[in-house]
Amino acid sequence: MDIIPIIFGFLGLFAAYLLYLAVEKYPAGEKKLTDISDEIHLGAMAFMKKEYSILFVFSLILIFGIYIGLGLSSTVAFIVGALSSSITGFIGMYTATKANVRTATAAQNSGVSDSLSVAFFGGSIMGLTVAAMGLLGLGILYILYGSDPDTASTIHGFGMGASTVALFSRVGGGIFTKSADVGADLVGKVEQNIPEDDPRNPGVIADNVGDNVGDVAGMGSDIFESYCGAIIATIAIASTMIKDDLIELGTRETLMFLPLSLASLGLFCSIVGILIIKLLASRKGSDETNIANSLRGGTFAAAISFIVLAYIVIAQIGVSPNAWYAVLSGTIGGIIIGLITEYYTGGAPVRKIAEQGQTGSATLITTGLSIGLQSVVIPILTLVIIIFLSNHFAGLYGVGIAAVGMLATVGITMAIDAYGPIADNAGGIAEMGALGEETRKITDSLDEVGNTTAAIGKGFAIGAAALAALAIITAFVQEVNHNREVPVQLLLTDTNVLIGLFIGGMIPFLVSSLTITAVGDAAYDMINEIRRQFKEIPGLMEGTSKPDNQKCVEIATEAALKKMVVPGSIAVFSPVIVGLIFGPEMLGGLLGGGLVSCILLALTMSNAGGAWDNAKKYVEKGNHGGKGSETHKAAVVGDTVGDPLKDTSGPSMNILINVMAIVSLVIAPLL
Amino acid sequence: MDIIPIIFGFLGLFAAYLLYLAVEKYPAGEKKLTDISDEIHLGAMAFMKKEYSILFVFSLILIFGIYIGLGLSSTVAFIVGALSSSITGFIGMYTATKANVRTATAAQNSGVSDSLSVAFFGGSIMGLTVAAMGLLGLGILYILYGSDPDTASTIHGFGMGASTVALFSRVGGGIFTKSADVGADLVGKVEQNIPEDDPRNPGVIADNVGDNVGDVAGMGSDIFESYCGAIIATIAIASTMIKDDLIELGTRETLMFLPLSLASLGLFCSIVGILIIKLLASRKGSDETNIANSLRGGTFAAAISFIVLAYIVIAQIGVSPNAWYAVLSGTIGGIIIGLITEYYTGGAPVRKIAEQGQTGSATLITTGLSIGLQSVVIPILTLVIIIFLSNHFAGLYGVGIAAVGMLATVGITMAIDAYGPIADNAGGIAEMGALGEETRKITDSLDEVGNTTAAIGKGFAIGAAALAALAIITAFVQEVNHNREVPVQLLLTDTNVLIGLFIGGMIPFLVSSLTITAVGDAAYDMINEIRRQFKEIPGLMEGTSKPDNQKCVEIATEAALKKMVVPGSIAVFSPVIVGLIFGPEMLGGLLGGGLVSCILLALTMSNAGGAWDNAKKYVEKGNHGGKGSETHKAAVVGDTVGDPLKDTSGPSMNILINVMAIVSLVIAPLL
Repeated sequence: MDIIPIIFGFLGLFAAYLLYLAVEKYPAGEKKLTDISDEIHLGAMAFMKKEYSILFVFSLILIFGIYIGLGLSSTVAFIVGALSSSITGFIGMYTATKANVRTATAAQNSGVSDSLSVAFFGGSIMGLTVAAMGLLGLGILYILYGSDPDTASTIHGFGMGASTVALFSRVGGGIFTKSADVGADLVGKVEQNIPEDDPRNPGVIADNVGDNVGDVAGMGSDIFESYCGAIIATIAIASTMIKDDLIELGTRETLMFLPLSLASLGLFCSIVGILIIKLLASRKGSDETNIANSLRGGTFAAAISFIVLAYIVIAQIGVSPNAWYAVLSGTIGGIIIGLITEYYTGGAPVRKIAEQGQTGSATLITTGLSIGLQSVVIPILTLVIIIFLSNHFAGLYGVGIAAVGMLATVGITMAIDAYGPIADNAGGIAEMGALGEETRKITDSLDEVGNTTAAIGKGFAIGAAALAALAIITAFVQEVNHNREVPVQLLLTDTNVLIGLFIGGMIPFLVSSLTITAVGDAAYDMINEIRRQFKEIPGLMEGTSKPDNQKCVEIATEAALKKMVVPGSIAVFSPVIVGLIFGPEMLGGLLGGGLVSCILLALTMSNAGGAWDNAKKYVEKGNHGGKGSETHKAAVVGDTVGDPLKDTSGPSMNILINVMAIVSLVIAPLL
Repeated sequence: MDIIPIIFGFLGLFAAYLLYLAVEKYPAGEKKLTDISDEIHLGAMAFMKKEYSILFVFSLILIFGIYIGLGLSSTVAFIVGALSSSITGFIGMYTATKANVRTATAAQNSGVSDSLSVAFFGGSIMGLTVAAMGLLGLGILYILYGSDPDTASTIHGFGMGASTVALFSRVGGGIFTKSADVGADLVGKVEQNIPEDDPRNPGVIADNVGDNVGDVAGMGSDIFESYCGAIIATIAIASTMIKDDLIELGTRETLMFLPLSLASLGLFCSIVGILIIKLLASRKGSDETNIANSLRGGTFAAAISFIVLAYIVIAQIGVSPNAWYAVLSGTIGGIIIGLITEYYTGGAPVRKIAEQGQTGSATLITTGLSIGLQSVVIPILTLVIIIFLSNHFAGLYGVGIAAVGMLATVGITMAIDAYGPIADNAGGIAEMGALGEETRKITDSLDEVGNTTAAIGKGFAIGAAALAALAIITAFVQEVNHNREVPVQLLLTDTNVLIGLFIGGMIPFLVSSLTITAVGDAAYDMINEIRRQFKEIPGLMEGTSKPDNQKCVEIATEAALKKMVVPGSIAVFSPVIVGLIFGPEMLGGLLGGGLVSCILLALTMSNAGGAWDNAKKYVEKGNHGGKGSETHKAAVVGDTVGDPLKDTSGPSMNILINVMAIVSLVIAPLL
């Protein structure tokens, strides 16, 4: 039995490898395209190499601390977790930078269907790798330590390793991508008046590198750590549950193994879903609605087959059907949160924002802010209902298994999410390689659908992170009270808990502020470099000489990595400091305040940013005067304000709370 | 003994009356000025009349509910509380609209010293009335019900009455003032290219009315309810404390009476402070630094004399000096939070925002947002330290008495705060009455100082509201457990508490969104009306005919009052619904989540808004190109975005949490 997750893990990796071969099979295209693609590829790899070397040093400090505090096995688990996350990010980015140029070439040579296949396969490799690496890593550790309740806590280290890597990837990648984006746009489009993705612009390659390091690798490690966090937390809850709660649900052993079974099942259903999308897409043909429907169809098929099969598995292994209800609430809740995000970043609110742009950028921004703030309501109510139902049916274990239910089909949700930046990149390459109007139109329509799916993916990531964090926090409290005579109680009326609540609520505001500032500062460096090149390189504007693209990549890399250390350290060390100095009560309060604050800020910032972005696109389609109008100028301001919110600070919030929670869980035995 | 607060209450009202006579003594000025002033006065009174009639209907519903649920005495207390708050707001606004024209005239006839006196006396009337009405109302109810622990809970109704009125005044006033401001500016300054406060602009009177209903009456009732809330909560905590905790501090009787004693003392010290400011201002003369130093000197003198006298009083009545340490932490903490607010809305961050305006409005807005988010850190840490110290020295009672300590000298803090809008109005009247460069210069310098003091006042109001709300929440928990066999425990690990925490955290985001949208919608109506008048009234631009000012006042009034009902109802009814249907645990969680979320949003929005406002003023002084430059245009956008945040949504947060807390306290016996 215990070997199943490992088998499925290998199966997933094998499927990813087959997809990679399928992508490779497509021609990369003319030399001018592969040159561009190689530059993006090299830039991305250079960034990752530097990022990982900083992470290596940071990890050494943590490894030292973990080894001193918790011994060898936790240290090994941490290293495995960090490596798994790093490898996942690396594979995802490696293949994404291969898929983007092939998508552009396929769009030129064979039309929308092939081009969609390449882009989607590229995304699927990332999706399957996330799920497979999680199953493999956790599956192996589970056999070594996890299945025995006494040593199960060892695998928490895996989660901490994965989360630490995720945090830095997300924050660093987020700063990189937005500083490059803002810098390239501001100098290129506004000052030099050349189109987006123009090859003369020295910042364009960096911008495309940013899409990969931010939206592919960053998003991948974000989802990876939520996925692993949910599984680990559920195992932890099951391993420390008191006997009375157990009896109603099943044996401790089966309950501990259930999250891994469900994750294996989810990986299988994801592969099925990917095949269905391939079938739907190739049959139905070309237009945007069909592409969107294919993607949607595959996702729903994966979710529904997962729900059905989960029922059978749960019944077969002798766990109460109540656990299935909890899984169901998580899976459905995840879809609802995703759809609400789609509404706020693509529906009526976007048109309202664009309309307000007619009276200038101030009203446009105010409306966007107000919509961002409002967009928290339904997701929070959905989360609250998931918590209520899952707890009602299966107690604290229910919250954990609901999170697993939400994240089990991560293979396909992540695939659809990673497809977006690949399509976006393909568009950039098509523009830079001057592939012509027709090709650009295809990549644009792929990109457009990708934006919607990415919005859903973002909402889903926030919901999943919230539930995963809650499960980890629950596990933390149980772990703290495990083997303790007088249990620690997190009473809101206890001053320590209350103080923790305030501090925890405050940290996400501080981290958001730091990451927003970081984007601004890094963009400033980029702007200066791009301006310098336009001024100093003779013949650049005329197209007779080439820009020094890699210099821009270097500057963005330097800036991003320098700026990610402080917010990352706050996330990792604040629970350690609060927990070890002020005790578990204050740490518990900190996690509670941090959870609420992170989720609210993440939703507000991501949705406001997404809505501004799409309001700009809506205007660019010819509404309210179209491109070049005053309304468009106002919309561009809104988009620029939203950029760091939706791609840097907002997404960092997901990981921030998960890192704080998992670090707390790891240090729980020391409190 | 029990009569002391009433005596001090009358003393305070008498002092306010003397100041009123002093203001009245100054000549109102030429007819063209008194005409303008009369229009503002009438507009403000018309708004208040309508607002109070809506409040009357809303209160009837609440009165009915309270009578059914809690009986006659609580109902009476509610009515007294609502009336006290209404009368306070009325008096403050009545005198403010008398003082503004006299400030303008004094500036013209006798220079800065007299003009400062009138404006400051006008503000002091409001400040003293807040403190005096609070002492009078609570003093009388204390004698009737409060001094007996068994009936003490009756006076909670007073707090609910005061808070309900405060909520609607703050929200309604906030929507009014910003919609008028934005409307008048957008059509007048931007479209018609006429200066600010130009009498031809039909929206200018409404804008000036807005300063009074928003910044004077709204702020007054805001502070009034925090002040009363802190006193009521401390009495409640003392009345339900268990015997063991009592012994260390003092007798139940003295501890219940201590908040009223300290408030009486604070009122006395405020009067002393006001006299000191008058002396300092008339001796030192004219420039801005001197005005600022006078105001600061008086405030510090009041705070220091209060701290010293409080020590003596506490020792005299036989309460442990530990209670004094708690008071001290509150008083000092309030000052720190105020000064931090001053830094963020007037110091280096403002210059940084202005600098970022050189690259356009997007970077200016991003920087402002980031500074707003960052500005929460030190105030939250200060609050946390206050909570820690006051609890360390005097347990839960300590938190209450610390809040009283922070708010005791409210007479003078409120005086300085209300001085700002009077000076601002005086400037408007001087402009409309064409009193010339010299006079305008004096009113400008008064206004400038007023902006700084208002910023400090806002920070102070947030800190005070946080501590008052915390005290009320503490009282709520004690009240719920009073006479309960199995105490209610607010465990963060309890699903109900957790769900409450999420919902409580979400409500402030929803209310912010509603109020921001309300300002936008109301401003839209105003813009249309002002445009219509410019188009349809012949000779308006040439100055040969007069605008229909009162029509604009009416429109802003209608819009503001219509839009305040939904957010107001959410605040009042959400605790009732959650508490009665889902129980005290979820309500407790809701208050915890609401407290953290309200304070964080209040600080972020107020400080970002204040910083943008002052960045604009900084540019207008000639920095980065000065008025008319591209940087200035960017700064104007920032200011417009910040307006609803700092004057509508942000300040609503203070009251939101206090209303939710006091409503919970009132319904506690029913849970």
